[in-house]
Formats: sequence, C-alpha cells, structure tokens
Amino acid sequence: MDKDLILLGHGSGGTLSHQLLDSLIIPTLSGIPATGQNDAAVLDQNGRRLAFTTDSYVVDPVFFPGGNIGDLAVNGTVNDLAMVGARPLAMSVGLILEEGFSRKALGEILASMRKAADLAGIAIVTGDTKVVPRGKADRIFINTSGIGVLDHGLTICGAGARPGDRIIINGTIGDHGIAVLAAREGLELESDIRSDCAPLNGLVAELIGEGKAVHVLRDPTRGGVATTLKEIALQSGVGIVIREQHLPLNGAVRGVCAILGLDPLYVANEGKLLAFVAPEAAERVLERMRRHPLGREAAIVGEVVSGPAGRVEMETVVGGRRGIEMLAGEQLPRIC
Amino acid sequence: MDKDLILLGHGSGGTLSHQLLDSLIIPTLSGIPATGQNDAAVLDQNGRRLAFTTDSYVVDPVFFPGGNIGDLAVNGTVNDLAMVGARPLAMSVGLILEEGFSRKALGEILASMRKAADLAGIAIVTGDTKVVPRGKADRIFINTSGIGVLDHGLTICGAGARPGDRIIINGTIGDHGIAVLAAREGLELESDIRSDCAPLNGLVAELIGEGKAVHVLRDPTRGGVATTLKEIALQSGVGIVIREQHLPLNGAVRGVCAILGLDPLYVANEGKLLAFVAPEAAERVLERMRRHPLGREAAIVGEVVSGPAGRVEMETVVGGRRGIEMLAGEQLPRIC
Repeated sequence: MDKDLILLGHGSGGTLSHQLLDSLIIPTLSGIPATGQNDAAVLDQNGRRLAFTTDSYVVDPVFFPGGNIGDLAVNGTVNDLAMVGARPLAMSVGLILEEGFSRKALGEILASMRKAADLAGIAIVTGDTKVVPRGKADRIFINTSGIGVLDHGLTICGAGARPGDRIIINGTIGDHGIAVLAAREGLELESDIRSDCAPLNGLVAELIGEGKAVHVLRDPTRGGVATTLKEIALQSGVGIVIREQHLPLNGAVRGVCAILGLDPLYVANEGKLLAFVAPEAAERVLERMRRHPLGREAAIVGEVVSGPAGRVEMETVVGGRRGIEMLAGEQLPRIC
Repeated sequence: MDKDLILLGHGSGGTLSHQLLDSLIIPTLSGIPATGQNDAAVLDQNGRRLAFTTDSYVVDPVFFPGGNIGDLAVNGTVNDLAMVGARPLAMSVGLILEEGFSRKALGEILASMRKAADLAGIAIVTGDTKVVPRGKADRIFINTSGIGVLDHGLTICGAGARPGDRIIINGTIGDHGIAVLAAREGLELESDIRSDCAPLNGLVAELIGEGKAVHVLRDPTRGGVATTLKEIALQSGVGIVIREQHLPLNGAVRGVCAILGLDPLYVANEGKLLAFVAPEAAERVLERMRRHPLGREAAIVGEVVSGPAGRVEMETVVGGRRGIEMLAGEQLPRIC
C-alpha cells in the first residue's frame, strides 16, 4: 500500500476512512474531535438548533432493485438529519454529469428524488449542475446537503451511549449492499433482494416521543452495523455486546453472503437505524418501532456495558464471543 | 446534437444549461420559477431568514495560478451566499476522490480550503468523502454547500433590477477563466494572469450598508458577465445597456482573448460581482467599493432601461450597438 496515494478503502466507511479523516481531513478543515463526529452537525442559531449535513453519492450501478442513486441521495441526507433528532427542512442537489449520460435516465433519477423528498417532507430548494467530458466521471454523481431543525431539547449523539442501554435495530441488515452488489455483478438470484433505502425521519419522530430515553441514533450505512457499533463504542467510551442470533437477517441475504464469503455485519444499509435506549424504555421503544411500517422487524440486538471502552463483542450462535472491529479495506466499493 | 444525451454545454452556465434546468431539472425537483432563481435560496425560519446554496467543483487543472479547486470551492459558496445579502455561517465539504489521487495534493487543497474559510469567516462543520476507482472520476471533485444568515430586511435578488439602476462591477473581467485555460493548455504567457478567486462577503457587507439602494448582486461565474446580465434582464423584465469601453479588462487577458478568439464578456470570473444600484446611490457605492481591496478597479459599466424586457445591448468602443445573448455551447469547459 502506497501511503502517498488515495486508496479505494479510504472511501469504505471503515478503518481506512477513519484514518484519512482523523489524520488529514478533519484536523485540516475543522478540528472537530472524533467523539464529536455525528451524521449531521448541530448549529446553535439564536437559541434555535439547526442540523446540517452533506453526502455525495457515487453508487454503481445507478439503478438497482429497490431504488436508484436519486432516492438514495435524498433518503441518505434525510436520514443523516434524522440521526441527530432533526426534522428535515430543506435540501440542496449538486449534480455532476458525464457527457453522454442519458437524459431519460437523468429524468427518472430526478423524478425519484422529488418523490423521495415529498415523502420525507423535505423541500429541494437549491442546486447546481456540472458536466465533465466523457471518461472523467462515471455517468452521474449526486451531492445532497440538508438542513433540519431540532424541535426539542434532546441531545442525541454518538457519545451518548451509557452502560445498560439496549441497542435496537429497526429491521434486517445487509439488504442494500447485497442488492447493489447483485445488480452490479449481474448475479441471478432465486429470490428478490431489494435495497432497504427509505426515509427514517418518520420513525425517528416516533422515537423522539420517548424523550431522554433515546441516547444515540445512527444509520449503519458504509461499513455496516459492525463499523457503526465500533464507532459508537469508541465515541462513548463504553463496551458493547451484541447477540448474533438476534440480528434480523433476510434469508436470501444470508445465502448470498455465505456463498460470497461476506459478513452481513459489514454490509451497508440505507433504511436502518441503531437506537441506543435506556433499559427501562427499551421494550416500549421496540413496540413503537414495530408499529411503524419501517420497523416491523425491529429487534433488540444487544446492550451497552461499562467496558472495556471501545470494545464490541458478539455472542455467536454457537455460544462463543468474538471481537468486532471496523471494516478493514474495502469490502464492497461504491455502495452509495 | 443528440437531444437524448447530456452535452458538455449543459454545464456551461449558458443557454444549454438554462434549457436543461428549465425544461427538466428545476420543474422536476422543485418548481421554482425562472424569475425566482438566485445564487442561494432564502428560507424563512421562524421570522429569521437563512440562505442556503450548493456548488460542485470539477475544475481542470486542480491547481492554477491564483488558486486551486479548494479555495475556489470555498469562495464560490461564500460568494453565492453573499449575493443574496447573507452573512456566511457554516459550510459542508463533500469530496469525491479518484483512487490513486495524491494524498499530498489533497492535503494542500484542504489547507487552502481552511485558509479560505477562515478568511471569509465561515466554519466548515460537516463533510463526506467518497473514493471511486481509477478512471471513474478525474482526480478530485468537491461539493461545498453553505448556510448564511440575513441580518437585515433587504431583498436582493435577480428580479430586483429597476430602470435607471446603475450597474457596477468591482474589477477586471475574465481573469479566472483565462488563468485556468492557460494552465490547462500550458500556454506560455509573457505576463502573469491569475485567477481572481476571492471571498466577496466583506465587500457585500459594505454594500449592504447602502440599504435599499442595492437591488441585485450576482457573481458572473460560468457564462461570464454577458450571461449574468442576460439572466438578470430576463428575471427583472428590463433592458440593460453596457458600455464596452467602461468594462475593466486586464491587458494580458485582452491579449489572450484576442489571440484565441474568445470574448472576455463570456469568460468566467470568481471574485467579481455585478451590483445593480439605485442611480442616486451609484457614485457612493462606487466609492465604497474602490476603498475595499477587492474593489479598487470598480467601475460603472452600464445601466438598466425600461425595455425591451430581457434585452441586453453593448455600446461598442467604435460607437455601435450589439445585442448580448447568453453563452451558447461550451466556450471553456471545467472552469470551476
């Protein structure tokens, strides 16, 4: 590995991404400490809290079962706002198009964006379009940035996990990553695996109703559930134990992962969240989630322990325990 | 021209850009009418007005005399906020990196971004980094989105020009586009042409001091002064007359344009603004501008007339009049 060059793994969301962010990007641009890094920044604006977030999307292929780069881009930014407890307000759209890209495909993508924005209740208010010559980009890249409003006094952040917290996920893991991979590689699957791409702000609004019991929310996108749990354990200075048998997993996703040697714990999701909830409220939150269309398969998958700080362990189905680290290298490039 | 494909000219900022925006992108995403399109959206948030804007940068080469893609990206978004009269508050940075891009070059670009942000007084608060395989992007693309606050009750927008308004520019035109072109093509110039890339929020804060006399502000980036004037004439439903001999032009830029057959009126700027100002305040605004380091060569270049609506004319040096249209096709691709 050449230390002087950018590697694909620097975009994985895993260990290499964190190294690049922590050693170069964040200290140079802003100096936000690792414990303060969340899916969106929270700005105090005359006593009113605003959330602000950005994401660029480079998914390959552009269309995949369950979505396309357009609704992915809208939902991704809606979800990043929701993960700090913000109500999505307004969004920008920055398009980078490759010369020769199909105008019809662009139209379909934009229509998906509008539909997703309307569904999430966010307005697309500003944008930009650039075109680069053939071969200088890959069809279409989309940046979405979003502003949200925090209508409450809660602080929901990655440093908020406390020993005893129960960890709840709203459904099956790995669907998005495997759907994109299957579409890209042209895998012929017996069953239909679709991306779980969805806006989570409605579900989060339900959870906010539980008030201070909700400590952390994060969507396990690039790097999957494993990487996200590790990030939170490090940010909060706590340990985490999860139980393999409680992780909701679609049988078809399990099958593809087994054949390809992929661990679903590291596969990206786009419509899932991990909620860290005070133990006394956990069952109530679980019930609330299960009543929501995006939480029917919600499950308590583990809990927070006092230490060792930053350690994540999984109790396996056969009764052992194994340590969970962040994604190393790049398992599935260009998943979002 | 194949109507079904995206062309380079769709990113020019000129006629083709407007056609794509008006026929497809804006109606699909948001439905903002052409008269309401400004450099930034203005959102009313509990009686407080926020500005929100986005731009992606794909400039080639990444480093050029007077700047690089990093400070260009920061200043561009600062300027878009300033053009609606907003004070820049916070910015996001979305990086799309090509596998194999130099980490050292990335470090230099990020350092320039931080320096530019500090100079403009805007905080970089959130970001995202993606990496795509070699050949799927061109080194580095940067999206910056920004939030600003309007600290006053003025409405500064493209539809605000009124007959009689004087049109003031804060300095020479075409420097950015020619500096980038010369760097890209390896032109050996006798004199040094540098990009005018600069944050205009300080200069705008001065102008805001003139209150309601300032009707329109816009930075003539892609498509140059000609395209920007045409946009404003159309948005405001007025005519515009400018005088060629009053347009500030660096002699070296004039020379390169003459040799290459380029019209400086269509060449991009990155540190210039056009201010439309009530006639009684014009001389005062001009003096204020000239006292500012970014306005020393400011000049009144023309005025608004009642009609024909949407028509822009230039009185040439030799005394004729010619109509000015938007940039057609793509004069200089990837200038920002």
